[in-house]
This record gives sequence, C-alpha cells and structure tokens, in this order.
Amino acid sequence: MDATEFRRRGKEMVDLIADYLENIEQRPVYPNVEPGYLRSLIPQEAPEEPDTYEDVVKDIERVIMPGVTHWHSPYFYAYFPTASSFPAMLADMLSGAIGCIGFSWAASPACTELETVMMDWLGKMLKLPEEFIAGTHGQGGGVIQGTASEATLVALLAARSRTVRIILANDPQRPETDITSKLVAYASDQAHCSVERAGMIGGVRMKKIPTKQSNKYAVHGETFLKMIQEDKAAGLIPFYLCATLGTTPSCAFDRITELGPICNAEQIWMHIDAAYAGSSFICPEFRPLLNGIEFADSFNFNPHKWLLVNFDCSTMWVRDRSDLIGAFKMDPLYLKHDHQESGLITDYRHWQIPLGRRFRSLKMWFVFRMYGLKGLQDYIRKHVELAKEFETLVRADPRFEISADVILALVCFRLKGSNEMNEVLLKRINNGKKIHLVPCQLSGQFVLRFAICARTTESRHVREAWRIISQLAEEVMQELPH
Amino acid sequence: MDATEFRRRGKEMVDLIADYLENIEQRPVYPNVEPGYLRSLIPQEAPEEPDTYEDVVKDIERVIMPGVTHWHSPYFYAYFPTASSFPAMLADMLSGAIGCIGFSWAASPACTELETVMMDWLGKMLKLPEEFIAGTHGQGGGVIQGTASEATLVALLAARSRTVRIILANDPQRPETDITSKLVAYASDQAHCSVERAGMIGGVRMKKIPTKQSNKYAVHGETFLKMIQEDKAAGLIPFYLCATLGTTPSCAFDRITELGPICNAEQIWMHIDAAYAGSSFICPEFRPLLNGIEFADSFNFNPHKWLLVNFDCSTMWVRDRSDLIGAFKMDPLYLKHDHQESGLITDYRHWQIPLGRRFRSLKMWFVFRMYGLKGLQDYIRKHVELAKEFETLVRADPRFEISADVILALVCFRLKGSNEMNEVLLKRINNGKKIHLVPCQLSGQFVLRFAICARTTESRHVREAWRIISQLAEEVMQELPH
Repeated sequence: MDATEFRRRGKEMVDLIADYLENIEQRPVYPNVEPGYLRSLIPQEAPEEPDTYEDVVKDIERVIMPGVTHWHSPYFYAYFPTASSFPAMLADMLSGAIGCIGFSWAASPACTELETVMMDWLGKMLKLPEEFIAGTHGQGGGVIQGTASEATLVALLAARSRTVRIILANDPQRPETDITSKLVAYASDQAHCSVERAGMIGGVRMKKIPTKQSNKYAVHGETFLKMIQEDKAAGLIPFYLCATLGTTPSCAFDRITELGPICNAEQIWMHIDAAYAGSSFICPEFRPLLNGIEFADSFNFNPHKWLLVNFDCSTMWVRDRSDLIGAFKMDPLYLKHDHQESGLITDYRHWQIPLGRRFRSLKMWFVFRMYGLKGLQDYIRKHVELAKEFETLVRADPRFEISADVILALVCFRLKGSNEMNEVLLKRINNGKKIHLVPCQLSGQFVLRFAICARTTESRHVREAWRIISQLAEEVMQELPH
Repeated sequence: MDATEFRRRGKEMVDLIADYLENIEQRPVYPNVEPGYLRSLIPQEAPEEPDTYEDVVKDIERVIMPGVTHWHSPYFYAYFPTASSFPAMLADMLSGAIGCIGFSWAASPACTELETVMMDWLGKMLKLPEEFIAGTHGQGGGVIQGTASEATLVALLAARSRTVRIILANDPQRPETDITSKLVAYASDQAHCSVERAGMIGGVRMKKIPTKQSNKYAVHGETFLKMIQEDKAAGLIPFYLCATLGTTPSCAFDRITELGPICNAEQIWMHIDAAYAGSSFICPEFRPLLNGIEFADSFNFNPHKWLLVNFDCSTMWVRDRSDLIGAFKMDPLYLKHDHQESGLITDYRHWQIPLGRRFRSLKMWFVFRMYGLKGLQDYIRKHVELAKEFETLVRADPRFEISADVILALVCFRLKGSNEMNEVLLKRINNGKKIHLVPCQLSGQFVLRFAICARTTESRHVREAWRIISQLAEEVMQELPH
C-alpha cells in the first residue's frame, strides 16, 4: 500500500471509526462469545500472497466486533473509564506517522521537549508544588509512563536505590544484599494489585496496611506509624509507601496529610497513586483531595483513564529527577549524543522501564488545546453529577444500600442481603449484555461497582441502567430466599 | 469535537500524513534546534478556553516539525529501523477507536484471542518449535510486549522465581533472600544496555561474558561454561542467560547451539533476544541463524523494528506459560471473570509488567495480510541487499575498513586511522543533516554504524549517502594529521 492508496483507505477508516462510535450503543456492550471463538474464524497461518484490503475490512465486523467488549459504549460501567476523544485520536495518528522513538533528546528533540512542557502544563492545572515542575532549571519534572503499574514500580526501584545509597554512605562495609533483604514497602490493603506486584518484581517485602469500613477504607497515619515502629524494632528498614488516592474497589483516599510527615521524618519514599482520581484534581472543588502532595517524592495518575487522552498516557512527576535516573542510568556509545551534558537535556530512557517510547505528548497537546481547561473541568463535573444521580436512585430504593462514600464518579452499592444474592444479581446484569459492571469486595461483602466511564454517557443511559438493575433485582429477590 | 467534525478533521489528517511521508526526504533528516527550543514557542500554560483546530494544525509545522528527527526518511541510517507501514497505521487507528484495555480475556475477548493467534501465525513464519505455539491446548505461546527491554526483564523475573521455587522444593528451610543474593545472570558484553538494567531492576547480579573480534563478537559455549563453573565453585547460583542474536553494536550472533545445551543441563533459563535480527528469520536463508532455539525457554524480537508493524509490538514466546504466570499472578475480585478457570483462557496481564494494554495484534493482522509472507520476505531481502551494496562501496575504497561481518542490514565501518579522525567524520556527517548515523565501540575502536532503516530507502539513497560520507572523509583526512 502506497501513500495514494493510504489517502483513500485512511479516509474510509475515519468514516468506519466515526460510524462505530456514533452507533456504539446499538451493540451489546459485552460480547456473546465463548473462549476460543476467534481461532476458527480465520486461517491457521498467515497468507503467502497478500489478501485484498476489502477482505481485511470485511473481517472487522465478522471476526473482531463479535468479540469486543465496548468500553466506549455509554452502557459500559465496569472497571474504571479508559479515555477516548477525537482530538486524542487525531494526535495519535500523527504520532504514528512521525513514528520516532524518543528514548533520548537527540532521537527526536520535539518528542522529549513537548513531553516536558505538557507535563508542566498538566502539573500547573493540578497546582502541583513548584518542585514537581521542570521549567528550565528544575530538579523535578514529569514523564509519561505507559501505565500506573509502571509508575509504581519505577518509584519503588528509585526508592530502593536511594535507600541503599543512604545506608551505604554511613556504613560502606554492609553488604548490599543484607540491606535489600531487610527493606519493607507499604501500601493499603485496598491498593491496586500492581502495587504488590511491584514489590515482587523489585524483590522486596511488601506489607499491607489494614483499613476498615469505619475509616472509609483509608490508611491513617496512626496505623502506619505503629507498623513502621514495630518493623524497625524487628530490624527491618521501611523505605517506601505507595499511598492511594481513589482506590480501585471503592475510590477511598489515604490520609496523605498524616502519612506524608511520617514518611519525610523516616526517610521513606512516599509515592502517590491517583490513577483514576487524579484527573479530578484539575477542578478546584476536588483539589483538596490532593492536599499532602507537598510531602510526596513522586505522584502519578492516568489521563488515559479520565482526562480524554487515549491510552497510553500515565503521567508521573518526581521531586528530584536524580533519584529516578540513579536507579536506571546506562550510557552506551550508540545512545550518546553531543548535547548529553547540558542541563536542559532530558533523556527519558533513564526515567522508565522500556527504552523505546512513542510521541505520546502530542495527545496531551491536542486534547488540552481542543478542550481547554474549562472543557476538561466540565467533563469531570458531568461524570460526577451522573454518579450522584445514580446514587440518588439507589438510595431511594430501600432494597439497596450504598457501600462507600460517593466522592467522584464511582458508586459502590449492593442489595441488602447475602453475598450470593448480589453475585446472582451481577451475573444476571452481565448476562443481559445491555450494561456491564464488575464487582469488588468490601469488608467481606460482595459489592457492585457502577463507574461512569464513556465520554458519551448521559442521564438517560444512567436511568436506563438503573431500570435494568432494578428489574433484575426484583427477579432475583423473588427467586432466592432472603 | 464530535463525530461529524472528526470525519472532516480525520480525513485532513490522513492527507497531512500522506503528504509528510511522500515528501519526507526533502526535510533535513536531523533537526537544527538547540536544547530548550520548544518551550519558548508555545504558552507556559494550557488554555482556559479551547483553541481552534486550525491553530493546532498550524503549530505542527511551526512547533513540532523543526524538532523532529525523521526516522522514516530514506536518509536515516541511525540506531536500528523502527517500523512504519500504511496497513499498520490503519490498524492502529482502529485500535485507538475500539480503545479497549485487554488485560483479561473478559475485558475484550477479541483483543486477547487475536493476539494469541497472530503470535501463532508469526511463530509459524519463524518455524519456531511446536512448544512455543499456543494452538488450542499448548503450554507455551506468545505475547506482545511493549519493548524488548520488557521482554528481557519479564524473562529474568520468571527465571528468578522458577529457580527459587526449585531450590526451595529441595531445601524448604533456606531463606529466600539467601537464594536471591547468590543468583547470577549472564549476557554478552555486547548485549543491549537494557539487559544489564533488567538485572538491576530484578536485584540480581549480572555478569558480562567477554567476546572478542577474532570470535566475531559472539559468546561461545566454552567461555560461558568456564564462567558458570567458577561461579558455582564460589557458591553462586547461575540461573539466567540472555543470549543475543544480532547485537546492537555490530549485529553479532551468540552461539546458541553451544549455549543452549549448557543452559538445559544446568537448569539455567535461556532467553534469546533477537530484537533487530528476528524479523529476518522469516526468510529460509536467514532461519539457520535461529538454530538452537530448541534449547530456549523464551524468545523475543521486535516486529516494530524491521517487520513493518509500527511501534509498539515486541513479540515474545515462552515454552511454558506457567513460568511467566508464576512470577506475576494476582487475582483481585474486580479482575475475576466467569471464564477464569477454562484452559482456553489467556489473561495476558499475568504475562507482562503493565496491567493495561492496547489492541496491538490488529497491527500484525493488517500487516501480515496486506503484505503476505512473500511481501515481508521481499522487504527483508531488499534491505539486506542495500546493506551489501553499501558494504561493496566501502570495501572498494582503500581509505576505509569494514569492522564486522555484514550479515543483515547493518554495516559497521571506519576510516583506517585514529578514533579521533572517525569521531570528527561522524560529527561532520551528522552536522550536515543530510544523512544521520550513530557510532559504536568495537574492541576499543570508534566505529560508524550504517543501518538500512526506512521502508522507502532505495539504492539511490544509499549511493548518495556514500557520496556524502566519502566527500567528508576527504575533507577530514586533509585537515587532520594521519
């Protein structure tokens, strides 16, 4: 396919995409296929000779669409949102065409520099402390990671190497393996599973800090302080806390104003994971949820969740870039370039796990400019309002209860009654394939999560979702003994 | 921006992309900007109110293009290629529009299933041993990672957990930290810097196996065997070898037919990193370079380098998926789904570092079908021929020498003479901005790397590149004392 044919096929693809997204709510949100459905629909091997483009396009409806869970349907309420906007798609097309790999400044200066400036723009929208803004001479700054899991891991690795360095400075004879074998990291028992994985990958002990319903599933300073005191008494070395703002199960907020001073006093790295909730902090009314950021060493959230920048775009800021770079730096000759030594140069390969990276900041640039800060704030507020609307519907129905405070656009709710009854209800909901939800567990209870996800979700979709849930609840309650 | 406007803007973007790629060789391949150039060209903060789309598009030429290193210019000969093809771009547009996050089968069955089948297609093109093919009941199979760095790391982590498990099975009382503190991983001293980083991240010792010019910079079995015997005698536990097929400096090939049996006998995980060279193995004449794969535990290469599938698409196969899953598995309730227990289900989140993932297999599907195996083979062969053409030009010039065997599409060469002279030559070449190359170091010598990179590179571009190099060499030799 040459450029001339691409002009034609590209425009057809634009229409196909617009058609798909304009009519998405007519499709069942969750697919009706059994495991292994796809293999029998296509050949067992790649063709020797080229297929026609017409055949490939025909197979999108025949092979792919029947197996797609439509994350951008306004009837999708599962997990958390994943972003989708037209400006981000346009930017992504451009990114694919430029197709540079921005591992160093020289590998494509625009790729690195736009990223640094976009991270500053976004940092300013969030009113991050000055230390996290790169500017022209800052020690801190931002980087786009692929996912929050990677940010959590990168922060843990930076913390590990910083702690080892500090201890070795005072006790140069101590074997490094003796230090690492005593390191202990912490996170809420509500933290995302990727936090525990980061501990496994980094080969360090990871302890879960208990939370409870009466404390709104938040980690409090008192609990944390007690744990680290006990661990230190046992000869362990607390070195890393991953605090969560907006947990996956219930969107709970750890008390970072209490946790931060403890971390600072104990030289424990405080990383803040606000993967979902972070986008809301661009609104003044939600920004207080980020108070305590001034104590953090690193902070991350996912514009690819709730800020209209298509996946992947997980934004991470650090207070001191040398901490990150210290954990990773390698400089082979084939990656050196003339400007290496300048203070203005950022080589993002030292900030992340992969070496290669796409020109992802173009997506931020297009989205921020095409929406403007006000447009982005309106978008967040609308989702929160829709969640409040759903909460009101649930609260008005005496058969149901709300399982956690509704702070942003996630509603945790359940039928008053057994876990079994709620499991059956969820199964009915998802089998109906009109709406899609996933569960969580809170204090031993099976709970349904209703997250406002799609860009196009409106009040009428939420009310329709409630109508379906309410009707299925009626059926389930009639069938099952209370 | 709504779907109607996207139809218009998307088509304009398609034309912009086609224009860019059709005329790319008129642009200087390497940008003429100083560090920090971009910040002063755009506002310090995001706009409150939306900008117009026209303004955004105008800024592509004004702000972005001056700072782009044009990786897809036929005058780009630096690093290794990064893939760009129109079918991959079309598939990527579709992937962005579907915008599903394929961390589990249920999160979008088509995303997982197409990936498994495409990895089988590609594995068959490479004639991988049957154990690496998933089929419907295989224990092995493939996964798309973001980059080769991640594949190397994932393999190392799987090896680490397998080794710990085996040792603990025989000696359950032994502290795990005692085991990990004695683990030792190996790679060639020519291996990519990301291999050493994987060791740092995984917190294990990593030893470099020496290579030499007389051995074509390849790791031989004898050298490796001697090292592991010494290490075992010193109480260490060899557990992981990253063998490289096609090293970054000179495209050298480790002797995996010798290394494999040693690894198997010693229960050392053999991972093969063929990031660049792997694409060539689809041609029968290059497939012998992969002989020895039958001893490997895992294998990885980057179709996003040389197989026309745009970044990111790094394909990794494992012999036994339970080894990978064992290193990572976490199953919180919000990620469980009904089909969890079935043998046909693959939850790719257990195969990789990030949780989230794009629908990347669409790119493989479009590219494999639109080129066909023959088209892909032709593409590889053409690049190898262009490299041979360049090699012939260099060999015909008595001022120059070839520094390593030219096996695929990379030519390592230098002026006979001092490193300084070659450094000056490279600087002149890159300052001219007509062609772009990067150096490497081989046996203490500063060497120029000439890699055929762009899809559109033709003989005339290679001859023009040689004309420029040859003329600058003349200047440099006149100016500098021999």
